[in-house]
Amino acid sequence: MSLPERRYVITFGCPDRTGIVARIASFLAEAGGWIVEAAYHTDPDTNWFFTRQEVRADSLPFDVGELRRRFAHVQRELDGQARIIDTAERRRVVILVSREAHCLYDLLGRVASGELDVDVRAVIGNHLDLAPITRAHGIPFHHVPFPKDSEGKAAAFTELRKMVDEHDPHAIVLARFMQILPAELCEVWAGRALNIHHSFLPSFVGARPYHQAYTRGVKLIGATCHYVTAELDAGPIIEQDVIRVDHSDSVPDMVRKGRDIEKVVLARGLRWHLEDRVLVHGNRTVVF
Amino acid sequence: MSLPERRYVITFGCPDRTGIVARIASFLAEAGGWIVEAAYHTDPDTNWFFTRQEVRADSLPFDVGELRRRFAHVQRELDGQARIIDTAERRRVVILVSREAHCLYDLLGRVASGELDVDVRAVIGNHLDLAPITRAHGIPFHHVPFPKDSEGKAAAFTELRKMVDEHDPHAIVLARFMQILPAELCEVWAGRALNIHHSFLPSFVGARPYHQAYTRGVKLIGATCHYVTAELDAGPIIEQDVIRVDHSDSVPDMVRKGRDIEKVVLARGLRWHLEDRVLVHGNRTVVF
Amino acid sequence: MSLPERRYVITFGCPDRTGIVARIASFLAEAGGWIVEAAYHTDPDTNWFFTRQEVRADSLPFDVGELRRRFAHVQRELDGQARIIDTAERRRVVILVSREAHCLYDLLGRVASGELDVDVRAVIGNHLDLAPITRAHGIPFHHVPFPKDSEGKAAAFTELRKMVDEHDPHAIVLARFMQILPAELCEVWAGRALNIHHSFLPSFVGARPYHQAYTRGVKLIGATCHYVTAELDAGPIIEQDVIRVDHSDSVPDMVRKGRDIEKVVLARGLRWHLEDRVLVHGNRTVVF
Amino acid sequence: MSLPERRYVITFGCPDRTGIVARIASFLAEAGGWIVEAAYHTDPDTNWFFTRQEVRADSLPFDVGELRRRFAHVQRELDGQARIIDTAERRRVVILVSREAHCLYDLLGRVASGELDVDVRAVIGNHLDLAPITRAHGIPFHHVPFPKDSEGKAAAFTELRKMVDEHDPHAIVLARFMQILPAELCEVWAGRALNIHHSFLPSFVGARPYHQAYTRGVKLIGATCHYVTAELDAGPIIEQDVIRVDHSDSVPDMVRKGRDIEKVVLARGLRWHLEDRVLVHGNRTVVF
Repeated sequence: MSLPERRYVITFGCPDRTGIVARIASFLAEAGGWIVEAAYHTDPDTNWFFTRQEVRADSLPFDVGELRRRFAHVQRELDGQARIIDTAERRRVVILVSREAHCLYDLLGRVASGELDVDVRAVIGNHLDLAPITRAHGIPFHHVPFPKDSEGKAAAFTELRKMVDEHDPHAIVLARFMQILPAELCEVWAGRALNIHHSFLPSFVGARPYHQAYTRGVKLIGATCHYVTAELDAGPIIEQDVIRVDHSDSVPDMVRKGRDIEKVVLARGLRWHLEDRVLVHGNRTVVF
Repeated sequence: MSLPERRYVITFGCPDRTGIVARIASFLAEAGGWIVEAAYHTDPDTNWFFTRQEVRADSLPFDVGELRRRFAHVQRELDGQARIIDTAERRRVVILVSREAHCLYDLLGRVASGELDVDVRAVIGNHLDLAPITRAHGIPFHHVPFPKDSEGKAAAFTELRKMVDEHDPHAIVLARFMQILPAELCEVWAGRALNIHHSFLPSFVGARPYHQAYTRGVKLIGATCHYVTAELDAGPIIEQDVIRVDHSDSVPDMVRKGRDIEKVVLARGLRWHLEDRVLVHGNRTVVF
Repeated sequence: MSLPERRYVITFGCPDRTGIVARIASFLAEAGGWIVEAAYHTDPDTNWFFTRQEVRADSLPFDVGELRRRFAHVQRELDGQARIIDTAERRRVVILVSREAHCLYDLLGRVASGELDVDVRAVIGNHLDLAPITRAHGIPFHHVPFPKDSEGKAAAFTELRKMVDEHDPHAIVLARFMQILPAELCEVWAGRALNIHHSFLPSFVGARPYHQAYTRGVKLIGATCHYVTAELDAGPIIEQDVIRVDHSDSVPDMVRKGRDIEKVVLARGLRWHLEDRVLVHGNRTVVF
Repeated sequence: MSLPERRYVITFGCPDRTGIVARIASFLAEAGGWIVEAAYHTDPDTNWFFTRQEVRADSLPFDVGELRRRFAHVQRELDGQARIIDTAERRRVVILVSREAHCLYDLLGRVASGELDVDVRAVIGNHLDLAPITRAHGIPFHHVPFPKDSEGKAAAFTELRKMVDEHDPHAIVLARFMQILPAELCEVWAGRALNIHHSFLPSFVGARPYHQAYTRGVKLIGATCHYVTAELDAGPIIEQDVIRVDHSDSVPDMVRKGRDIEKVVLARGLRWHLEDRVLVHGNRTVVF
């Protein structure tokens, strides 16, 4: 990641009230914590308070375990939910793919160049097409074919789940993985499974969004990175972007132009997720 | 408009085949026509050919009536449909409004500064709020109240139609006019009635699109200028644009940010329509 | 402005060290202050800490004068510089113009609609062109002609300064005012004079930037809102934006397209300035 | 490239006058040529006419050699300059690199996936860092070290030139190649050498543009794809794009964000160049 030195990242949410910032800041100040980055937000509809704080690890006289123990008091006092990560623990990622190469290729390039400093444990594909590029990066590729029949598909998902879960990944990235996750997997992987959908959601849910966009005659096409939930393409949105098209663009032109948006939107969304910048609240996200 | 000298603008569509460009270009060349701007497109699905040509009026030895008569031969030969406008005939525009000022205000400013050289014949509002600004620009404002009951509404639309049609306008601009046109009016004004919808269509059709956008948690909001058809917010799209929002933007923030997109998208769409740059083909547009 | 209820806005800068956030937050918490919005930043080069806090006025048991007195202790302790504004005091604005209408027109529209809730005390022009539109909004227009000779010009600036200073404005907006402020005025109005330059600075400083852009053959043109300093077009940048152009765009086309960017960039920059979101640091800005 | 079937691409420029389009179109129509795409432009300053036409190869009863011979008559008649390419001849590309991987990696991914259907003959680097990724794609990598002394550098450029010229490439891509080409090479490769500069030119010419951008405090950073000429970063611009930054972005953040723009701008510029969509006119480009 882009974090230059070891940090503890605290994300915290609680019902809003006076004095929360003071409570957290005082807690950190008393321990000598050097806050490198801090962000706050209150949702006006639900009156829920959110914060994310990055603290230099070497500024605290104790380790992350002790930080978690001590912060538990603050958390209880404020009736909130905290999560504390240590950037020294490299983020584990599993990537699910099908045949389309561009998102996987782009992610692997970012990892190879050190821009995205994560541990890609495995790439799993329902086709073999992307095995060579994956292996050229020294990353294991697993092939899990998905039959058309529901029984075979269920078995494939069981196998997939096993393969994914053994790595206990911080992120499961659906990099143009064309299979729809069963509700059960959506639940198990809730908040960790990120999808890139090749439209500007909520427009053009489901299959062949560029064809839908072409038929509707839109003047911009987009891509959406979102958390996977049981309802198709309806999960909390992390990031979106668009690119201009016009009447001279055929569907293949849209597919080509869209790829450049898809890969950058997915990369941004994944980075923010792994830096623990994304706080889900209902079906919306706070991105600090 | 931005045309510096008098021009004839020819738009033409016909089934695609070899030699169309040669036929049209030769016709113009033989008459001495100086083509200032030319654009071509063929729709690959329907194999329909489109072109738009701007010719300097002073390069032709005859007037627009004669140009139309002569071009009728080309049209018949190619089994197509032509439209020829003379930029010396100022475009007549009627603007329909409700209470929201920004789109009207922006259009009037462009007209006043000469950027948009059109003849705004009237502004018609179902509320009186925008009468003063309209009249300050020396433009007649008509008030047509829209009752809630269907009978009263029908009568109001009859009155509206009469008021609009007496100007035989080239464009009827729904500048955040909040009433839904009856199917009959959509038909009568087909290809001349432009609406600005405050979302990136097809997302968030209908009422309160910014509320819908907020609830869905999108990261970009948009605006769409489209031709009005009987199906709500489903007509051919002329132009769209978007602006970034994040979790800190409330609905009123989105409303405010969205206005800047709405007005510019409407102004662009109207300009292109009046310069006869927009060719409707099914539910899509070619914008030359 | 967009602030729905009365607030005190505290902006503060000081050398970075541990415990600043705790100190400020505790100060506010002890007084019962309800923080509605808070932002922090540390400049890594100079190790300077910045914060901006919005506090609900009705959550504090004292007025803004007492808040300033009490906060002075915090300020001294942290060796910093604070500024506290009360949103109940409407921001006073003076606008300087020449002949170009679009930026003035756009600002007046935002004021008239209530989107920009400021007190425009006067519009001052070196030409009379924009007097009618200004007066139609019920705002005084003053004409200060600028002769070409340096003596006459100096006298004009003296008169201008007097006219501006009598309003003690929070913002002096150069809305396409084509005169270059003398160094002395830049100093007197430092941090309050905002200019809109019609290029993406630092490209195309000085006169006729669209001509420069055309000659260079750029594919995007832009606009920059910045604080005025003695060096021409070199002051701290508040906001910038761009729009796409291509080979078919003449200089007048660029001028027309550019206007849509200029007015929105100026409006954004002015809003942020008046909400005290812009903190100048050397020649850069922090925009909270 | 994205061309689905074999085409001849004609680009042509000549002094503007009446009848040019008719002449070219009639020439093609008489031969039965099916025009798939056509674009026109006249430069108003120099009165120079430009066109680009894509004709289906199978619609003509002769080959590209004969087309060139026959079109030479048209060319002479109109006193113009024509270039005709056959899309069946795959475009040859040589890529020059240094240590930065992202542009090369992105281009190779596009080639590998078939999106960019070109023949990358060689990658030449002044460092060895990018040899492995190049060779993993089955493409020869040549190492030409560039000493600091002028003599050694001149020798290196001689070697580089020999290596490049033996492939007679349609494009020489400086994909973050950090050496400045000598004037002589700029001339030999004129119109074929494309550079990606990591700023929104003409801002921040030369070394370390992101540092320059950071120091100036701009709110958007950009990238520019341009033809290489003897004057540094001053050649005709093919494509540009920008991305938003703010005060929280350090120079490394800008470098990271900028990469996503650099690679997409370079890929677009290269595609357009290879499809012969870019016509240079003085120091500006027409991009059809």
